[in-house]
Amino acid sequence: MRIHIQTPADDTEFGFTPAQFATAAAAAGEPPYSLSFGHTPEDFAAVADQVELLIGSTPLLKPLRFGALAAATSLRLIFVNAAGVDGLSPFGWLPDGVTLLNNRGTHANKAGDFIVMAALMLSTGMPGMLAAQRDARWQPAFSPPLATRRVTILGTGDLGSAGARALGKLGVQVTGVRRSAAPHPDFAAVHDTAALDALLPETGILVLACPLTPDSAGVLSRARIALLPQGAGVVNIGRGRLADQDALCDALESGHLGGAVLDVFDPEPLPAEHRIWRTRNLIATPHISCDDPASYNPRSLAILFANLRAWRAGAALPNRVDTARGY
Amino acid sequence: MRIHIQTPADDTEFGFTPAQFATAAAAAGEPPYSLSFGHTPEDFAAVADQVELLIGSTPLLKPLRFGALAAATSLRLIFVNAAGVDGLSPFGWLPDGVTLLNNRGTHANKAGDFIVMAALMLSTGMPGMLAAQRDARWQPAFSPPLATRRVTILGTGDLGSAGARALGKLGVQVTGVRRSAAPHPDFAAVHDTAALDALLPETGILVLACPLTPDSAGVLSRARIALLPQGAGVVNIGRGRLADQDALCDALESGHLGGAVLDVFDPEPLPAEHRIWRTRNLIATPHISCDDPASYNPRSLAILFANLRAWRAGAALPNRVDTARGY
Repeated sequence: MRIHIQTPADDTEFGFTPAQFATAAAAAGEPPYSLSFGHTPEDFAAVADQVELLIGSTPLLKPLRFGALAAATSLRLIFVNAAGVDGLSPFGWLPDGVTLLNNRGTHANKAGDFIVMAALMLSTGMPGMLAAQRDARWQPAFSPPLATRRVTILGTGDLGSAGARALGKLGVQVTGVRRSAAPHPDFAAVHDTAALDALLPETGILVLACPLTPDSAGVLSRARIALLPQGAGVVNIGRGRLADQDALCDALESGHLGGAVLDVFDPEPLPAEHRIWRTRNLIATPHISCDDPASYNPRSLAILFANLRAWRAGAALPNRVDTARGY
Repeated sequence: MRIHIQTPADDTEFGFTPAQFATAAAAAGEPPYSLSFGHTPEDFAAVADQVELLIGSTPLLKPLRFGALAAATSLRLIFVNAAGVDGLSPFGWLPDGVTLLNNRGTHANKAGDFIVMAALMLSTGMPGMLAAQRDARWQPAFSPPLATRRVTILGTGDLGSAGARALGKLGVQVTGVRRSAAPHPDFAAVHDTAALDALLPETGILVLACPLTPDSAGVLSRARIALLPQGAGVVNIGRGRLADQDALCDALESGHLGGAVLDVFDPEPLPAEHRIWRTRNLIATPHISCDDPASYNPRSLAILFANLRAWRAGAALPNRVDTARGY
């Protein structure tokens, strides 16, 4: 197979190295392949007509969508080194006969950690205590254990189920919300999205862990935030545009929400003057919730090679992006 | 049995109410008793000669130790509504024939929550990210999952074992340190305190969860902090005097320690001018790690009545404080 990898020119992303690729290919028993690397659209253009599998991150694939791909007549697969592919949507640019793959499955360990941490920080009242610390105020505030809180996770995929699994081990009953109400082994209960409004008043901690699609954009609207009970907490590890950010900030400032732990924003990076940084009881982390630098590339490549094996066998590709759904 | 309860005049502590006591006694099948309540040492003095069981918190029992107890000729048991009784030590004041009980077992749920939260906050690098948020700086920093960190917990009692149990469920290998190296079901390994210096260089996150006694005071000395690896984290939910606080602050300021989550201090409340509040990468919470207001009194009373049942049966009392050891 003729493979081309677009890698970042600097270390701002987890670019694949030749050694990582060779190691993962050998571990997967991948048959012989030929491989090229490039940084710029011109680097890709120079080999485009031979490439069967193109690999890159969203920012590196984005400039190739129109024009550069026209010459890629041998292309069959594109592997995006990310789980969320909203940055490449809408998908009209994807040539006929080319399958788009993401790396879902890479992020579960860290997502589980982050969701548990965020839920515990909200359950324990850390946002208020961190503010008290800044003012050197000794102000004890007690809270019930996490296992008594009702946690609702929007999204039962790789990220949401990792959170539900970890929270479940700690005795928390987690409700999942997804497109269908089909049961999921990691969730105590699963409801479809039509049930969301009815679930919100019973939710102590709401976690957004679903893909950003035209359907899910703004799913946590101002009206839905108002449906959460006084003092509820919100966690977002999906995408910033899943929530009405201004409504979230308003609900935190007013005290309707007790706290929020947000890892994703619109836009990213957050500009220094953005109100998010300074909103009361809001903890902001810079899109780090799901990425483990030590395991990210090996896991991601193992997922790629599992898909290549399925592709050669003519089987369904576990990481195929359904471009109509957007994930 | 003739029982007297000293309760706080205000709601600064979790004082028992008559209704809570009656409910717990009925649930435990406690035989008939007579009960009085008081706030001041004079209240106790008025009934001291009849009281067989005296109940109170450390601050309420403290002023009774010398003098008031001399008249308590019927006294057999004192129940301290706390797990750590260091505030009543040394124990020379305890009359012959009177057994001191603590409420260990009350705090486990919340202690498990807090230890997991603190370990995740340190593992995820939250102290540095909270500082970046204060400066509105977008500065991604990635970290490996918690399960790859080595956690050492000093103290394998109620608090430490709750932490080890919860961390173990999340896949963390936890090492316990206690007086003897006897195995403990919640810990992957247990070592005696003589092994501590050898364990520290291998410890990513160190949790102090042991009682404060003459032996344990200052156990996390400046020299031992230096034995921890660069970037290690420290959690303290035991007592402030377990650690050399100034050495902790110095090691955080110098960057030798990556972070600390401290819930206990010397003194408490921490004065506004104390350096703890402002130390780099130090998260300070106001002694709230182990107390759940909803369950604290019911759990504590259930423990008391289990001990009274054992006492009437002439059996060993599970919550008897060994005054020679100090816990």
